[in-house]
Formats: sequence, C-alpha cells, structure tokens
Amino acid sequence: MDLSTLIGLVLGICMTLYGIISSGASVNSYIDPPSIIITIGGSLSSLLTSMKLPDLINSFKNGIKQAVQEPKNSDPKKVITQIIDMANVARKEGLLTLEETANSLDDEFMKKGLLLIVDGTDADLVRSILENDMNSMYSRHQVIIGMFDFWAAQGPAWGMIGTLIGLINMLKDLQDASTIGPNMAVALITTFYGSLIANWICQPIENKLKVNTDNEISIKTLVVEGLLSIQAGENPRVIEEKLKTFLPPADRASVAVGDEKGGEA
Amino acid sequence: MDLSTLIGLVLGICMTLYGIISSGASVNSYIDPPSIIITIGGSLSSLLTSMKLPDLINSFKNGIKQAVQEPKNSDPKKVITQIIDMANVARKEGLLTLEETANSLDDEFMKKGLLLIVDGTDADLVRSILENDMNSMYSRHQVIIGMFDFWAAQGPAWGMIGTLIGLINMLKDLQDASTIGPNMAVALITTFYGSLIANWICQPIENKLKVNTDNEISIKTLVVEGLLSIQAGENPRVIEEKLKTFLPPADRASVAVGDEKGGEA
Amino acid sequence: MDLSTLIGLVLGICMTLYGIISSGASVNSYIDPPSIIITIGGSLSSLLTSMKLPDLINSFKNGIKQAVQEPKNSDPKKVITQIIDMANVARKEGLLTLEETANSLDDEFMKKGLLLIVDGTDADLVRSILENDMNSMYSRHQVIIGMFDFWAAQGPAWGMIGTLIGLINMLKDLQDASTIGPNMAVALITTFYGSLIANWICQPIENKLKVNTDNEISIKTLVVEGLLSIQAGENPRVIEEKLKTFLPPADRASVAVGDEKGGEA
Amino acid sequence: MDLSTLIGLVLGICMTLYGIISSGASVNSYIDPPSIIITIGGSLSSLLTSMKLPDLINSFKNGIKQAVQEPKNSDPKKVITQIIDMANVARKEGLLTLEETANSLDDEFMKKGLLLIVDGTDADLVRSILENDMNSMYSRHQVIIGMFDFWAAQGPAWGMIGTLIGLINMLKDLQDASTIGPNMAVALITTFYGSLIANWICQPIENKLKVNTDNEISIKTLVVEGLLSIQAGENPRVIEEKLKTFLPPADRASVAVGDEKGGEA
Amino acid sequence: MDLSTLIGLVLGICMTLYGIISSGASVNSYIDPPSIIITIGGSLSSLLTSMKLPDLINSFKNGIKQAVQEPKNSDPKKVITQIIDMANVARKEGLLTLEETANSLDDEFMKKGLLLIVDGTDADLVRSILENDMNSMYSRHQVIIGMFDFWAAQGPAWGMIGTLIGLINMLKDLQDASTIGPNMAVALITTFYGSLIANWICQPIENKLKVNTDNEISIKTLVVEGLLSIQAGENPRVIEEKLKTFLPPADRASVAVGDEKGGEA
Repeated sequence: MDLSTLIGLVLGICMTLYGIISSGASVNSYIDPPSIIITIGGSLSSLLTSMKLPDLINSFKNGIKQAVQEPKNSDPKKVITQIIDMANVARKEGLLTLEETANSLDDEFMKKGLLLIVDGTDADLVRSILENDMNSMYSRHQVIIGMFDFWAAQGPAWGMIGTLIGLINMLKDLQDASTIGPNMAVALITTFYGSLIANWICQPIENKLKVNTDNEISIKTLVVEGLLSIQAGENPRVIEEKLKTFLPPADRASVAVGDEKGGEA
Repeated sequence: MDLSTLIGLVLGICMTLYGIISSGASVNSYIDPPSIIITIGGSLSSLLTSMKLPDLINSFKNGIKQAVQEPKNSDPKKVITQIIDMANVARKEGLLTLEETANSLDDEFMKKGLLLIVDGTDADLVRSILENDMNSMYSRHQVIIGMFDFWAAQGPAWGMIGTLIGLINMLKDLQDASTIGPNMAVALITTFYGSLIANWICQPIENKLKVNTDNEISIKTLVVEGLLSIQAGENPRVIEEKLKTFLPPADRASVAVGDEKGGEA
Repeated sequence: MDLSTLIGLVLGICMTLYGIISSGASVNSYIDPPSIIITIGGSLSSLLTSMKLPDLINSFKNGIKQAVQEPKNSDPKKVITQIIDMANVARKEGLLTLEETANSLDDEFMKKGLLLIVDGTDADLVRSILENDMNSMYSRHQVIIGMFDFWAAQGPAWGMIGTLIGLINMLKDLQDASTIGPNMAVALITTFYGSLIANWICQPIENKLKVNTDNEISIKTLVVEGLLSIQAGENPRVIEEKLKTFLPPADRASVAVGDEKGGEA
Repeated sequence: MDLSTLIGLVLGICMTLYGIISSGASVNSYIDPPSIIITIGGSLSSLLTSMKLPDLINSFKNGIKQAVQEPKNSDPKKVITQIIDMANVARKEGLLTLEETANSLDDEFMKKGLLLIVDGTDADLVRSILENDMNSMYSRHQVIIGMFDFWAAQGPAWGMIGTLIGLINMLKDLQDASTIGPNMAVALITTFYGSLIANWICQPIENKLKVNTDNEISIKTLVVEGLLSIQAGENPRVIEEKLKTFLPPADRASVAVGDEKGGEA
Repeated sequence: MDLSTLIGLVLGICMTLYGIISSGASVNSYIDPPSIIITIGGSLSSLLTSMKLPDLINSFKNGIKQAVQEPKNSDPKKVITQIIDMANVARKEGLLTLEETANSLDDEFMKKGLLLIVDGTDADLVRSILENDMNSMYSRHQVIIGMFDFWAAQGPAWGMIGTLIGLINMLKDLQDASTIGPNMAVALITTFYGSLIANWICQPIENKLKVNTDNEISIKTLVVEGLLSIQAGENPRVIEEKLKTFLPPADRASVAVGDEKGGEA
C-alpha cells in the first residue's frame, strides 16, 4: 500500500477545513447540496458523454487502485539483481534451466518474456511481443489518465456554469440589497467545488498515474533489455554494466551481485 | 447503439435545469433568443469561415454518428479469435481457402487485407496499403475532432463577445440603477451559453471521438499484425501470443481459441 | 471561389451587429476610432516587430487568397482517376508517351514529377525532390498560419492594454460618478475589438489554412505515391487499390476508372 | 539592418501613447517608478534565478542583435545560384578548384562544408559535421528564444503580483472612499507594464527569432543538400531541380543560372 | 557554486518587499499564517498525493541542489580539449594507455565510457550503454522538473481556493460594510502567496533545471561522439572538427589543442 496518496488527499481536505475555520466561518456554509449536484453531477455527465459507462467505471476503479497501490516489482535494483542472477544461471547451466525460474516468478511480464526465451523464440519476435505488451499497457493507462485529465477540466467548467446560473439569478433581481452577498456566496460555491475537484483530487491523481506509468515503462524496458541480453548469451558483467545505467549513479554501487558483493556494497 | 453519450447529454442538461430551479429561478430567465443567436450563430459563422460548408455538415453529421453509434468490430477479443481461426485454417488448408472467409466478412478493412493476402500480394505492399488506409481514416477523423475542438473554443469566445456587447451597452447609461442588474444578467447569458456549448456538448463529444479513434486504430493495428503473421505462415500459437499483447492482462485468459478453450476460460 | 469563408465572415459581423441592435444599443456606440487604432494598430505593430514588412504583407495577402480561393486539384477522386489513366497509358505505350500528358497538365507539382519520371530519373531522387517540394510548401504555409496565430494572440492582448489604459485613467478620477459607466464602456471597447480580431477573423482563417494545407499535403502524397508506382511499372489495379486508401470508404466505389466503370459507379 | 523590428517597437509605444492621450489622460499618470521596479525588477529576478548571469546577458544581447540584424546569406535564390555555379566549376575543372572559392566565401558554414568536400572527407562525415553544426546552432537559438519566452510569462506574472500588493493594501483601509480609485489605478499600473513587457517586447521578438531561426535552418539545409550533391558529382541541372524545391514556385523561374539565364529570367 | 539562482531568489523577495513598502503598506499586513498554511500546505498536500514521500523529498532536495550547484564538467571547450588530447595519446601510444587517464578522471560518465573502450567493448554496445545512461539521467531530471512544474500549478490553484473560501465567507455576511475591505484583503493574500510560489520560486527553478539538463545532455553527447571517434581511430584533426560543431562559432577558435595552439588562440 502506497500511503502517500491517501495521506495527501486527507491533508488536502484538512487544509481546506482549516482555511474555512481559521477565517471564522462555519463549515456548514460551505456545504450546499444543490451545488454539489451541479458541479459533480454536471462534470460526471460530461464524462459519461465522453466515454462508455463500463470504461468510465473501469478507469475510475483502476485509476484509484493504481494511485494507492504499491506497484509490484517497482524496485529496479531488485529487478537488476534478479536478471543478473538469471544470466549467471543461463551461462553456467544453459537457458533451459530458466524454465523453472520462470514458473516461479510473480511478475507476469518477466515470466512471459523468460518463457519465450526458453522456448527459443526468435529475438526480434521476443522484443516485438514484449514491446507490444508495454505499448498496450501504456495505451490502457493513457485512457485512465485521460479520464482524470478530462474530469480535472470539467470540474471547474461546471463550477463556472453553476456560478453563472447563480449570478444571473441574483442579478435579475437586485431590489433587496441584503440578499446580494449571500446569493453571490452561494453562486461562488460551485466554483469552489470545481477547484477542489481539479486541484485536490484529479490533477494530483493524474500526476501520480503518470509518474507510476513512466516508472513501470522504465522497469519493463529494463526487463526487455536484460532478457534479450541473456538470450544473446552476453557476459553477465556486461549485462550488469548495461542495466545499471537505468539506476541513478548513487544507487549503482549498491546493486549487490555475485562476485562484486564484497567490494561494492 | 452506444447510449452513454446520449444519456450523458441528457443528464448534463438536467443538471443545468436542476441548478436553475434549485436556485429558485425560473427557467425562462435563462432563455434569451438573441443570446442564443449571437452565441450559436457567431460560433457557427466562425466554423463556416474555417471550413467549407459541405465539410462542416459532414463533420457534424459524422461526428454525432460516431459518438452515439456502437463501432463495428470494437471487441479485440472477438477479432483475435477470428484471426487465430483463420490462421488455423490457413495452416491446414492453405491461404487460398480464406477467400471464402474474406467474402463473408462484414469488416471492410479485414476483408480487403485478407483478399490482398489471398491474392498473393507482397507483404510490404499489403502492410503499406493497410497502413495507408488506417492513416487516412485517422486524418479524416482528425478533421471531425478538429471541428468540435474549434467549436469548443469559439462557443465561449462568442459568449464573451456577447457579454462585452451587453456590458458596454449597460455601462453607457448607468442613470437608472434599477436596470443594472437585469442588464448584466442578460449580458452574462451569452457567457453561460458559450460554456454550455463547450463543456456540455463539444468537449465531451470531442473526447469520445478521440477515444473511439484510438480504439479503432488499435483494432486495425491488431488486424494488420494478425494478417501479416498469417501470410508469413507463423504458428497460430505464436500469433495468439503476439495478438494477446493487445489485451489487458486480465482479459488474456478469456480468449477462447481452438485447443486452449477448455483449460483457460 | 470557395465562398464559405466569405459568407462566414459576413455572417460573423451580422451576428455581432444583431447582438448590438437586439440589446437596444446603437451601433455607433461600438465604433470608437481611437480604440480601433490602439487595438488594430498595436497588434499590427507587434506583427511588424515579429516579421519583416514584405513577409508580413505577403503572409497577409497569401493567407487571405488561400482562404477564399478554391484550391486547384483538390478533389482526390479526380487525381486518382488521372493517375490510373496514366498508369494504363504507361503500361500499354511506355513511360515516354507520358511526356505529352505532362506538358498538358495544369498542376505544376504533378507535371514536374511526371517529367522527372519520363526523364528516367532515379526513383529515390524523384521521391526526394517531390517530398522536398511538399515540405517546403508546408514550411511556407506554416509562416502564413503562424502570422494569423500571432495576430489572434496579439489582438486580445492589445485590447486588454487598451482597456487597462482606460481603466487606469477612469480610476484616477472617480469624483464624478456619472462618468464612470461611459468611461468604462469605452475602456471595454478595445477588449471587444480584440475578441473580434481573434475570433471573428484570425482563428477561423488560421483554421481554414490548416485544413487546406493538410488537404494539399494529402493530395500531393497521393500524387507522389501514384507517380512512383507508375515508374515502378506496378499493375494499374494495384495502384488503384493503393490510391483508393486515400479516400473515405464511401467514396471508393465511385472512382470510375477504365474497365471498372460500369460495375462500380 | 532589418528595420521592421525597430519600427514595430517604436510604433507599438506610439500606439500606447496615443491610447493614453486620446483617452484624455496625461502620460505622467502612467509612469510610476515603483511599479516599473517591481514589474521589471521582479521579472528580471526570476530570469536571473532561471539562468546564469552571463547566459542571461548573452541571450539578451544576441536576441536583440539577431532580431534587428539582417541575417547574412538569407536569400535562398542567391545561395542556389552560388551552389549551381560551384557545381558547374566542379564538373568542368574538378572538385579541387573549389578550394579557392571556399576561401573567398563569407559564409562560415558553406566555407567549412566546401573545405571538407575539397579535402575528400567521406560524405557521411560531411553530412554529420554540418548537421551537428546546424543542430547546435538551433539549440543555442532555443536558449535565447526560451529566455524571451520566459520573460514574456514572468512580466505579466509580476505585474499581477504588483497589482495584488496594491489591491490588498487598498482593501485594508477603505475608510476614505476618495482614495479607492487612485489607489486601484496605481495597483493596475503593474498589470499594464506586465502586458507591455509581454506583448510589446518579448513575444514579438521571440516570434521574430523563431522565424529567423527557421529560415536559417532552411538555408543551411539547402547548403548541405547542395554541397553533398556537388560531392556526389550530380548533374548541375539535377542539383538545380533539387534545390529549387526550397523556393516558392513563383520564385523558381527567377533563379538565373548559367546556360538557362536567357530563357527563364 | 552557481550564485545567480540564489541572487535571483533574494532579489525577487526584495522586489516584493519594495513593492509593499513603496505602496505605503506595512509588511505585516502581508503576513497571514493561516493563508500561508492553506496555500503552501494545500499545494504540498497535492504534491504528496501525486508522488511518494521519499520521491517528493528527493526531488525537492536534488532540484534545489542542481539549481544552485555549479555542474561539473560544464565547459564544452575543456571537454573538447580533453578528448582531443586523449585522441592524440591513443593515436601515438595505443588505446590501452588511456586506462590510466580514465582512472584519473573526475567525470564518472567519461570514465565509464573510456574504460569500456579500453576494454575493447563493441562500439554499438558502448554507444547503447552511454546513451542509456544519458536517457536515464534525463528521465530522472524530468521527474524533478515535473515536481516543480506541478507545484507551480498547484500554488496558484490553492491560492484561489483560499481566496474563494475567504470571499464566500465575506459575502455570507455583508451587514457591516466596514469589514468588507479588510476581509477581501485577507482573502486575496492566498492568491498573492500562490503567485509567489509559482513565479518567484517554482517556475524559475524549473527553467533553470531544464537549461542545466539540456546543457548536460549536450556535453554528454559530445563525450559519446568523441569517445566513439577515438575508438574508431579517427584522425584527431577530424575529431576536433566534429566536436567543435558543438560550440558557438565565436568559441571555436579558442579551443587550444596541441599543434594548433599557436596559430588559433
């Protein structure tokens, strides 16, 4: 479980509440059900217009899940160690002995790649299958990211529509000056909700999903390069040199593999 | 028929009406024919300046159609099953037997590709013809998407022009303070209409068309890869492995083909 | 003559006038020569800073011309028919007989390409010369499009500068409350003009030029592909198949060529 | 000297002054030293944070210089004539005779390319050296363009910061209603300055630099293509055909070269 | 230590203070702890939602460090001189003698590249390892740059949320007209803080990091080209010619290497 997203969301609402309370207002004045309905309902309507319902539900569910879940296999150092270990095994005992390793792997992507190699699939085909897999994962994530991006734009837009409705209503009848303030306050509440939808929820989650996706792509690229090097029978030390370029320089020394363990860690 | 777009549009207008009624206003105050004429008429004028009339009508018609119509052949799982079945047939009975299959296909794109293969067209030429077809479909859709994008920008822009006209008129003569409010309300109505054009109609439809186009491109890419693999005489199991990368991992097991049907579904 | 742009521009100004008149104002109150000078003059000054005078005049002239002129050779169906006819001639009577055809062509691009082929120029060189020609046309058009894009940004910017000047002047001296309204009305007129420059003129024309350029590129790509296929001595039926991918599916059947005329149209 | 930029800048300030005077205000009311300091000083501080001082000074100096200086060798027609002349010389008297020509050239880029060719450098190496030179020129210009782009964003941003400071100060004490107007006028002056920085100076110069850079890249591409064709010993007529594609069709006939001079000009 | 960023940040705050003092206000009125908490706290909450805490802290720390630290090896002239010296050594005494040079190098990137060459690694592999290293450095920097970019957007967004909270509260109760001004002043302070976060801190630092990254990429590209040329045994003069293209023309003559020292500097 990756708690930072949850903590961030909770902190964001706390800041908002603090802002309300510290300005001496009551939280109640900021809760207006019709405004909630028009801002959230309106922006969800636009989302529904823009996507099929199952895709919408899916994107929402998967988006939240990916934002709060610790991604599997997200530590490049472990992945590199794993691959170099395999390279050593392959070198000493042959590629075929990796079949067992493959079947014990959690990571479906690495498993599939390894099995393809063990099966003696042509290197170009292995690369194309694995890269296709990556691209198709990327496109799927883009749909989810696009959903939050669209919502982040529609929230404030419907907030403004709500405010315009309120303003027009208020301006129609300015006779009683004492109602101007409260009416305008209510009109602004939808803008306030719209800003929260965008800045408290959608944009941060969208950003998180982007960062996670970039990470996942980077790890998978590393796996592809590593597996193809194993298949090509490259020297494990060369493979290590190659794969370490995926790490920040400071982390390179701490990849503890085989004969280098003692000296570097 | 893909209902979500229609439902989304209906819900969007309901939210707007709810917003109006819940703020205690009458819907009538939000209907102002001159404002409708200037916001819609003005933005349509700009659209007409920016495109030929037949292109404009076409984009509008096709855009709406594509947004609410269930696209043909949009389920990648079925397409994959179809292609693997063909691969099996081709393997056992030769490519030529696929001519009949081709003629029975609904999907023009797959049909054309299959016929090219059956005719023994060179693989590079097949790919180039099919990819050209995809690119040209993509460009056609971009014109439609561009039309909604342009309208989504022009709607609020002409809304603002209408509001400026109203404001300037109102400010010219501030003598009678009691008319300020109502005049300003009327001035704001074009901004309100502009926001609705953009956020209730154009942007959601634009987004839907983008998602649909991406989907269609993805399916067609899948078809191209599949057909070329059949032509190359690749092993149906390898083809399956390749094509399944176009699916989300969760859906891969459920592709029921030939000898694997029992074990995986 | 492509009338839609002219009609769009006229309709746009009509909508604006209608908006003014329907709000009960006199058109005169919206005409303020100093405001015209600062908005148009200011934005043209910025354009002059950003481009050489001859380039500016050229871009303006060519932009308007391209926006309202029916482009030559803009119907892909006719171009395809033409190319397939040539392919048939080349097949039956040899490439050299196309020299005459070339000299009778209106379209300079196709003529040059055909002459290169008749001269026996190397296929790669033909492609590179024709593609260079396309790219250089594209860059030239981008300069014109960029000019309208820049003006579309500068118009509202100088409108805002004018409004700021008016507001500052008005605020300096608020003694006589009765002048506030009219002064502010005048201040807003530059913003109104800026919006019109951008949304009534520049953006629609910019969009038109983009669509036209995309079309021209698409037609020229078609010509390049067609000519190179003729040079390579490909079968006219294959060429037809290839070139038809540039058309929307609905239009493909209506390309009437030689022996297929009867059955398909 | 390319005067249009200077004239544009002068005209821009004239339009602003005209706007001020025509609204009946005194120019003095628009000059407020503290506002100048906060808008210009603040945005320059941000620039300094974003770049090293020498880079900042350099970008500023070179940007202004490139914007107002007539670029050397900016007429593609002359460059084409020059290259075709060289091609003719090389054809008749051999590549080596071009050494003298090279040494007499003003244009360092063409000179370097020609010397490489005369030295018998490998064509790929020549291309890679010259393209590297172009890319590195492009990156250098992007830094300068980026500086003006950043300033164009920071100017209005610090203008708004200044206005917020003024507004907050004014709102703190609304007792004396007669000071509201003048205080707000002063607050708005920084916004006015920010708009001028962006729209009168930075964006037009940025645009000019972009157009100039595109031009320079285009001319250099032409030179590279031309020189490599000379090295490859291509027929001067073919070279001419190739290079003329860099010109707009209307200008092509006017390239007066050797034996064609009579007929075409 | 690269002082310009620090000086820029200090100057920026000075400009702000000068703006406050010169408008006759007291600095105290611009310090409002609850506003600080909601603007900074809210935007940091969004950052936390969008990134894991360790990544956030890391990006912050590294971002500041990279912005104020003089980058190692940032002078392309020195790097070119170094590489040409190595090329001369390699020519005269063989590649192996460079092992010692490699071990004495500060720059890890050049060292690694040189050792790979000395080890006789295949040129393609050397290039791919070094380019991977560059790409992965680039991705790491993009994460940091993305963090400042996101903060630059969230700062003003939470500033606006704070202002909306204040406005709504103020409008709820307009009875006592004398509090309107001060309440609105307080409401605007969060917008003021948000602008400062974006324009005084985040955007300039983001820009600095981008410029630095581009520079680093450019130097590393130079190193890669240089090392591969050494490995290929190219003539040091040709290498010099090649690498000098990375310099602005004005700096090229001042690269003082071996036998050319006298004549050129």
